[in-house]
Order: sequence, then structure tokens, then C-alpha cells
Amino acid sequence: MKTHRLATTEADFDARLAALTAWSEERDAEVATRVSEIIRAVRERGDEALVEYTNRFDRRNVQHASELVLGKEVLQAALARIPQAHREALEMAAERVREYHSRQRQESWQYHDEDGTLLGQQVTPLDRAGLYVPGGKAAYPSSVLMNALPAKVAGVGEVVLVSPAPDGVLNDTVLAAAAVAGVDRVITVGGAQAVAALAWGTDTVPAVDKIVGPGNIYVAEAKRQVFGKVGIDMIAGPSEILVVCDGKTDPDWIAMDLFSQAEHDEEAQAILVSPDADFLDQVAASMARLVPTLEREDIVRTSMANRGALILARDLDECMVLVNRLAPEHLELSMDDAEQWAKKVRHAGAIFLGRHTPEALGDYCAGPNHVLPTSATARFSSPLGVYDFQKRSSLIGCTPAGASRLASIASPLARSESLTAHARSAEYRILKAPEA
Amino acid sequence: MKTHRLATTEADFDARLAALTAWSEERDAEVATRVSEIIRAVRERGDEALVEYTNRFDRRNVQHASELVLGKEVLQAALARIPQAHREALEMAAERVREYHSRQRQESWQYHDEDGTLLGQQVTPLDRAGLYVPGGKAAYPSSVLMNALPAKVAGVGEVVLVSPAPDGVLNDTVLAAAAVAGVDRVITVGGAQAVAALAWGTDTVPAVDKIVGPGNIYVAEAKRQVFGKVGIDMIAGPSEILVVCDGKTDPDWIAMDLFSQAEHDEEAQAILVSPDADFLDQVAASMARLVPTLEREDIVRTSMANRGALILARDLDECMVLVNRLAPEHLELSMDDAEQWAKKVRHAGAIFLGRHTPEALGDYCAGPNHVLPTSATARFSSPLGVYDFQKRSSLIGCTPAGASRLASIASPLARSESLTAHARSAEYRILKAPEA
Repeated sequence: MKTHRLATTEADFDARLAALTAWSEERDAEVATRVSEIIRAVRERGDEALVEYTNRFDRRNVQHASELVLGKEVLQAALARIPQAHREALEMAAERVREYHSRQRQESWQYHDEDGTLLGQQVTPLDRAGLYVPGGKAAYPSSVLMNALPAKVAGVGEVVLVSPAPDGVLNDTVLAAAAVAGVDRVITVGGAQAVAALAWGTDTVPAVDKIVGPGNIYVAEAKRQVFGKVGIDMIAGPSEILVVCDGKTDPDWIAMDLFSQAEHDEEAQAILVSPDADFLDQVAASMARLVPTLEREDIVRTSMANRGALILARDLDECMVLVNRLAPEHLELSMDDAEQWAKKVRHAGAIFLGRHTPEALGDYCAGPNHVLPTSATARFSSPLGVYDFQKRSSLIGCTPAGASRLASIASPLARSESLTAHARSAEYRILKAPEA
Repeated sequence: MKTHRLATTEADFDARLAALTAWSEERDAEVATRVSEIIRAVRERGDEALVEYTNRFDRRNVQHASELVLGKEVLQAALARIPQAHREALEMAAERVREYHSRQRQESWQYHDEDGTLLGQQVTPLDRAGLYVPGGKAAYPSSVLMNALPAKVAGVGEVVLVSPAPDGVLNDTVLAAAAVAGVDRVITVGGAQAVAALAWGTDTVPAVDKIVGPGNIYVAEAKRQVFGKVGIDMIAGPSEILVVCDGKTDPDWIAMDLFSQAEHDEEAQAILVSPDADFLDQVAASMARLVPTLEREDIVRTSMANRGALILARDLDECMVLVNRLAPEHLELSMDDAEQWAKKVRHAGAIFLGRHTPEALGDYCAGPNHVLPTSATARFSSPLGVYDFQKRSSLIGCTPAGASRLASIASPLARSESLTAHARSAEYRILKAPEA
């Protein structure tokens, strides 16, 4: 089957790798204009606009916005309906994700300096969070768990999930996952209109403090436009994996690990890098043999042909240079001493250590979040976590002696900035020497 | 002097408060277009475009981009030139800010589950950060410390500061602060062109991973447009303070605390809320008496008249309801038992506890950061901190037994999502029962 073959020794390697991994979100001016119209309409006309857009874009026939809301009983009914094996798997996955994320919770902290002045940070959860879950073929129950559970572990007061129901069709497993995750309500709206409703609130959709979750180009643009009014998570690009292998893992395993990324969609990116040329050939042979057995064969062939690659490196150290250059969303270190090699990784969304840790386990149930920074944004961002649903307030409580000392530092700095009121506000707190 | 007077018992109180505190960033379509042209030009023509814009907007006569770069020796020379008192104040402030922020550093963590599977997060600093420092009247040396020190404490590899030098004029104290904070290089460019250069890199300006710091409407729009290519901090609105006072603090102190916020600029917002009507009158009298003594009297009069307010509440509990509704950037609790009352605060950028803790101390030297979420964004965001310059990679390392168990959970979930390659990648790791 077709995929790119590169070697780091080639003269044009850098350019070829850059071209292969280039990705920039298309910010279409027309999309931006349409999204800003939708946001304005929902902001001004609330539920009325929300119902209009939902009927038009999702081919529905809703009369009143209240029909869009699914309460906890509807979610519980879906949970009761799905196959027992799926229910158990969802519950086990949720339990592990909850356990892992509980270790991410940030706690308030404080200390007193030598003057007795209190310094610290008070950590609090968001009041209300909104989760966007795509509808249709990208409606993944695992994404419901991964987005909702960190919010619940953080102690968010209310978790509202929005997801479109094209033609009125809902995915039972998604609703069941919402029940397992403790989502407070589900509203069956999507697109820019759902983001607008969450940001500004309507009679039916409560205004939230932060919106997380992936979506199409309209959803991404809407999130960008409402940023500031509410918080948002990162804008996600196509999913990617970089597998580093020393050549000693079963090539069928590696081929299937690459396919598990490639099957997401035509733009997904799966790259293998190894210092073992024979091994790359073996993986290529495994891929050719295994691809016809896949349900999503066409998608896998397209993404491997367009964006996949098998890369020959000089040695494992050079593999790690590529890792830090690509800052991959998923990094599989299928090699001996993976834990030691991981210490050389500066940028990656998630690191899968050793031959027995395929990405698929992390996608569902290992515990860590599967919402990860894509397109090299691991250079500056982190997996979705409990910390995304908490925020901090600085605490400063001066004793009179502490205030007096700090005021004598602040005053000349304020005056050097010509901020006299700052200086005098500080100077009021300077203690007078006792009269003789 | 003129300011708003409100009481929570008034029928139209909610509407008046909402109107008074309303602020939405003007996203001018023309500004957006000009900024996107500037970004494209810098991205395509690099230093050449950067020099052109700098000469045009900052009225300079630069021939080559290398003239824009100030190395460490220039910063050290500025530090040697400024008054000794300013230098000492900068160094003492830096020491306290460094000490406080060192307690924010996040550490890597891991644990093993009952199968021996390793789970955790590896925390790493950004490779390179860009700090935007406004030029002209808003060039604050304290802002250099507050933006650069968290990055240095995080262990960021290189900290690059950009700041415009209109007419070629530089602020010595700003350069001195950069020296004290350990900034690696200063580049005298500003505006959208500076943001574009930091995001995409030019021959002279290195591409960074994240851009932080406040700026005008062009800088804010540019940050919004490059978000995704690089990380950004929040988009800042006008600065605000909410003072809650039980009526027992010297009214002159409270008046000056309000002024210290109001003097920032005409859009700054200073609000006092108290259950003591007489005290509000005393503060009003103090304000009228003190305002003529201020260097920035005109600015203070304008901002107090347009956006300031003295609010009468029923009791202190109602004051706290207003606090959480307004989610202020700065909150001063000038009252008894401030530490206990602070526990009722759900949303605030920084909380100043007690009568001896004016905001001005926090602005310069108490230790906590003065870059804080404005315009009610404290509902979902935090003070700038070390955590903004660190990121996390998830760690998952399965033992064969652990992988086998997780694969049996992942497999049915993957199949329920029609992701067969995910399921099979997991199933390869299921251990076969030993042959009988």
C-alpha cells in the first residue's frame, strides 16, 4: 500500500518532512462572516434563532426550544438500553479516568513570609462548563467521558453537553456515556449556534464559563470568536501519532497501531520512525497484508498515502530529535527502556511507553485524557485535565509591619512609573516611627 | 467629584450595575483586516516587512533589522544608569516575585496501578517565550518583572522581550527591569508586526512557543489571529478594582486605593461597595479633597465619572454576592476577618486581605503576579503564573498483564465506535491463555 518513505540522510529530508507534516487551520473569511452572523442572531434573538438554525442545519422540525433539552432521566434510559458489555466497559473506563484525573486536582496553598504576611493562591472550580460533542460519524462516547469527567472531578457546579442530532437521530451510547459521566443536561444543538448559545446564554441554554470539545470548522471559528466572553480549550487539528520503534516489536502490532490513527479520517497522520531499515520493510509488508481486513480500509489507504510515512533514522537519538521537532499528539515509544527514553521528550501530548502500550488503550480506558494538543501545539499546551476546569485567585494579606516594608519598595517604583496614587495608597500604610 | 452612586435596594440596581460594568472588546473588522495583512507580510517577507512597519508606525529610521536587537550588555548598562533607589526596589521586588512564583512550579508525577502499569504526567517548560511590553506611557518596568519572572522560574530556555521604541526612545527602567529579570534579548518592535514576528519567526526575531503580555487593540487582535500557531495568554480589558469595606478603614485610604486603579487610564474601573451609607459619604468627601493633589487628576476624574461607583449594600453577605457576580480583577477586602470572608469568594483575580493590603503593594512587590484576568474572566482564568510556561505530557506504560486487562475494556468500546483498527491494535496485546 502507498505511503511516504523518507530517510534522515536524504538531502531534502527536512523539507519533505516539513511539507508532510504542515497543517494550518483554514480560516475562511466567508466562514468567519457566517459564524459572526450566527453568533449575533443567537445573542439577540436567543432560543428563537437557536431553533431556526437547528431546524435548518440539522433537518429537524422543532417547535419550541424546550424540545431540545434531555434531562437526566433520558440519559439513564439510554444507559439501560445499551448492551450490557458496552455499559460495563463504559463504567470501567470511567472509573479509571476518574481515578487518574483525581490526582490532577490542584489544591489551594499559602505561606507566611517573615513579616507574617499571608501569600498564596485559592483554587476554585468553574461554576458551569459546556462540552461540545460532534454528532454523526464522529460521535464518540469515549469523548464524552474524556471531556466531562475532568470537569466533574474539578467540582464544576453544572456540566452541560451540547451535541447535534441530525434528522433527530441520537446516539444511545453517547447518551449513556453522559449518564455514566454525570453530565447534568444534554441539549441537542450543534454548530456555531450551539457555541453562541453556551457563550451568551438563551432562555433554554444556560451561559457557561468555558466551552471545551472538538468540532468542525464552524465550531472552531465560533470558539475563536467567543473566546474572552468565555474560556475555550485548544482548537484541534487532525489527530496524529508518531511511533518510534527499535525494530524489535512485532511488525503487525506496529502496522495496526499506525492504522488505529489513520482510520480516524482522511487527514489523520500516522508516522513510524526507526533506525532499522529491514524493520520498516517488514512493517510495510504487514500494512499491505492487513489493510484489506479493515472496516475503514478506504480511509486508512487515503490517510496513509497522503499523510503517512515510514522514516529511516540514523539511530535512536536521532529519532528523539524528530520527536521534539514534531511535538506529536500521540507518541509511542515501542522500544526497550522506554521510560528512560521518555525523559528526553520535551514535547508530546501523550507518551505511550513500551511495546505493550498501544495508543488505543489510552484512547479509551488507561486513565489519561485522550483530548490532546495536535499540530505541534504540545510545544505550549497540555492534555485536557482537571486543571482546565479550575482557576486560581491570588491571596495577599499584609500584616501592618509587612505592609510598611512592602510600601517602601512599592513607592519608588510607582513614582518611577508616574503613578502617584499608587505610591500614596502604599505610603498610607507605612508605619510612623513612635514619637520621641 | 463625580462618580456613580448606587444602592442594591433600588429597583433598577441590576440593570444599572450591568450597564456600568459592561465592557466588550471592540473587534473592529477593519482592524482585523489590517492585522491579517501585517501578519501575512511579516510571514512572507520577514525582517524586510518588520523594518518597514517599524519605521512607519514608530517613526524610526532603521536600515537593517539587526539594529532592532538589544543584547544583554545594553540591558546591563541601563541597570547601571538608573537611580540606585530604583535599582534596589527592582531587585527587592524581583526577589519576592521569584520566591512566590517558585511555589507555583508544577512537578512531574506518576503512580503504578495494581497491574504495575505506570500512569502520570511529565511536566516540561516551554522552549521559548515572547513577552510583549507596551511602549510609551504604558511602559511599566513592573510588568517586565511580572511577565518575565514566571517564565524564568518555569525554566523556559529563552525569554525574548519585544517593546516598541517610538521615535527611537527607550525607557531605561524597562531595560533595567529586563536585566534584573534575566531576559535573554530585547527587540525594539511593537504592534501586530511584533506579534507576527514572534509567532512565525524572521531572520532576526526567533519564533517563540507562546506570547504573553498586554497591548493595544492591534496587539490583541494579532494575538487572537496567531493563536494556535503559538500559545497566548488572555486578552486583557481595562483594569478594575472592587473594594469591599465594612466602614472601619480610614476613608482617605480607601479613596486613594480607588484612585490607584482609576489613574491607569480613562477606562479603568474603581468600585467601592459597603453596607455603611455614612462611610460612603466620607469616602466621597475624601475623594473630593484628595483628587486635586494627584498628578493624573484628569484621568482619575474621567474614569471615576464614567466607570467608578460607590455602592450601598444591605450587609456584608450581599457585598460578597456582588463580588462573585462581578468576578473582579482586583478585590480588596478592607474589613475584619478578611481571610474568613475570602473563602466565600468564588471568582477574583487577586484578593487583597485586610486594611493594610492595598492593591498597589500587589502591583509591585508583594510577590503574586499583577497580570490578572479582567472583565469577569476570573470566572474561568487565573493570574499569569509559572504554570503558563509549563506544559504536560501524559505518561502511560502498560505491563503485559495491565495491557491485557485494558485491551479487554478498550476492544468493545472501540467496536461500538466502529473503530476496528483501534480494537485490533488493543487485542494484539491480550495475553493468550497458556496451552493446556
